[in-house]
Amino acid sequence: MLRLGILGTGKIVQEFLPHLAELDFEAVSILSTPRSVERAERLAAQYHIGRCVTDYDEMLQSEVDVIYVALPNHLHFSFAGRALEHGKHVICEKPMTSNVDELRTLIDVAKKNRVMLLEAMTLYHLPAYQAMRRDLAKLGPIKIVSLNYSQYSSRYDAFLQGIVQPAFDPAQSGGALMDINVYNIHALVGLFGKPAAVQYAANIARGIDTSGIALCRYPTFQAVCVGAKDCASRQTSVIEGERGVLSIEGPVSCMTGYTIDYHDGQREVHEENNPPYRMVPEFQAFARILNEQDWAYHDTLMAYSLESAQILEDARRCAGVRFPCDSF
Amino acid sequence: MLRLGILGTGKIVQEFLPHLAELDFEAVSILSTPRSVERAERLAAQYHIGRCVTDYDEMLQSEVDVIYVALPNHLHFSFAGRALEHGKHVICEKPMTSNVDELRTLIDVAKKNRVMLLEAMTLYHLPAYQAMRRDLAKLGPIKIVSLNYSQYSSRYDAFLQGIVQPAFDPAQSGGALMDINVYNIHALVGLFGKPAAVQYAANIARGIDTSGIALCRYPTFQAVCVGAKDCASRQTSVIEGERGVLSIEGPVSCMTGYTIDYHDGQREVHEENNPPYRMVPEFQAFARILNEQDWAYHDTLMAYSLESAQILEDARRCAGVRFPCDSF
Repeated sequence: MLRLGILGTGKIVQEFLPHLAELDFEAVSILSTPRSVERAERLAAQYHIGRCVTDYDEMLQSEVDVIYVALPNHLHFSFAGRALEHGKHVICEKPMTSNVDELRTLIDVAKKNRVMLLEAMTLYHLPAYQAMRRDLAKLGPIKIVSLNYSQYSSRYDAFLQGIVQPAFDPAQSGGALMDINVYNIHALVGLFGKPAAVQYAANIARGIDTSGIALCRYPTFQAVCVGAKDCASRQTSVIEGERGVLSIEGPVSCMTGYTIDYHDGQREVHEENNPPYRMVPEFQAFARILNEQDWAYHDTLMAYSLESAQILEDARRCAGVRFPCDSF
Repeated sequence: MLRLGILGTGKIVQEFLPHLAELDFEAVSILSTPRSVERAERLAAQYHIGRCVTDYDEMLQSEVDVIYVALPNHLHFSFAGRALEHGKHVICEKPMTSNVDELRTLIDVAKKNRVMLLEAMTLYHLPAYQAMRRDLAKLGPIKIVSLNYSQYSSRYDAFLQGIVQPAFDPAQSGGALMDINVYNIHALVGLFGKPAAVQYAANIARGIDTSGIALCRYPTFQAVCVGAKDCASRQTSVIEGERGVLSIEGPVSCMTGYTIDYHDGQREVHEENNPPYRMVPEFQAFARILNEQDWAYHDTLMAYSLESAQILEDARRCAGVRFPCDSF
């Protein structure tokens, strides 16, 4: 059983904890800010987490094997980095870091300390995604990829009134690209690798992209990723090939199936063996990778993280979205 | 009754002629190549067209009021130009010309000869489009526009085997942008005017774009137009605003309705008073404009044509799709 230290008490942690019992992880401690101690204690009691701490060093000096970083984006780098330096494996929420420099630094620290660094990108571990990946060849040569994740954020109302929460704060590495389009970008990278060039046309307010369109050019096809927090739509994504089109309804990050329509009128509906919750297969994969020390798969996932980070950075540079920690 | 001379005997003319009786036009002659004389004579007999000609001068010297140019794209300029020089009004199929220079020349000739020049873009005259245009304000500030017209072309099979028909021939001003994405571009222009910048990522084979994605940046929102002849999809288009999203199923050029989904869960389904055929309201509008000499509306439509031509040219320049008649 891998001993897990959890950083943060936010939405994702609250969603994750009820599923912990199904996983090969034991949550041994949870870190909160002094302000959120009460919530941390409530969660600890409910999910039998041994220790609540507000001092990160205390957690790092305890018998924790893996640190799960579920903090606002801009804190990923320093908190993951300190864990790696202490010889702890790290599972870090997406996006792993604010920019490529930070990610390269983390990778170096992880290597030096011979520990694993894993990005919590549910997508790669979903059965529907994996089946889709195998089915791509059925489409014939691919020509157009169009991914849409537009979700009106409950926090956008506040943003319009001048209250800037982390998801819209450049100082906290927020924005539609980092927060939501990141899923589309990872899907592209996982399915097709890194594009030859990226352009990002964004709607910018208070220095942050509230929505935007990333155009990704590949040598033999063209792709577009729409991510929005200031408007919504049906979140339909399509991969169009010479023989047929594959459609996904809903965000790719929680995809449970897909449909292939061939030009000859035939249709295949794929509903995969879906997990109880999208984080379950992800943490099952992480447990296996960590237990078996599967460095090959670890490195494959790391390559996806690095390529995605490069796209996100290229896109931000193109749109002029700059974070305080950026050197560009 | 306006006396119409029809240039061409292709698919669009064959679709149009059955509806001519509903319109304030009398087809007095039809021009064909010597190779297509038989088809022209068959159409003339069926639809009571007075004269079949293979010599354009013969038509231009006859008592024709309006020339309808339904020839391959690269011939629009010269045939429309000669009509205008002869003092005939011109209705020209889309795209009006191969590039902006040609269009500016035609506009000058039309002005000098005090005749009208109208692009046969069905979209602007469709009741559903006009209702949608009025309803845009309901969406709140618009953030993302995504238009998709992907239609696998029956001619693409031949193209893959090396048989290049006009729609895929750079020498005939073909390609996915000119042939199919042009509808999305006109929709954008009609609804929102000219974008601040355009990028076009295209799939190129034999010097032509078989599909592509045009990214159009506006000061306050971002738009993407997908047009494909080498793959297909559901052809869903969306206009996403802060208050709701407007969706169109099927190509915008034949839109018969649209749906608005508000973020609060309310839905409006709009099915407009649809015409028997999409070219009917267009030619009704042209008859009115010509009969009433409505220069104001003529000039509005001409501005759309010019702005669209500029986008198409900018996009082709960006993707390196060049026609023999281009000076860039």
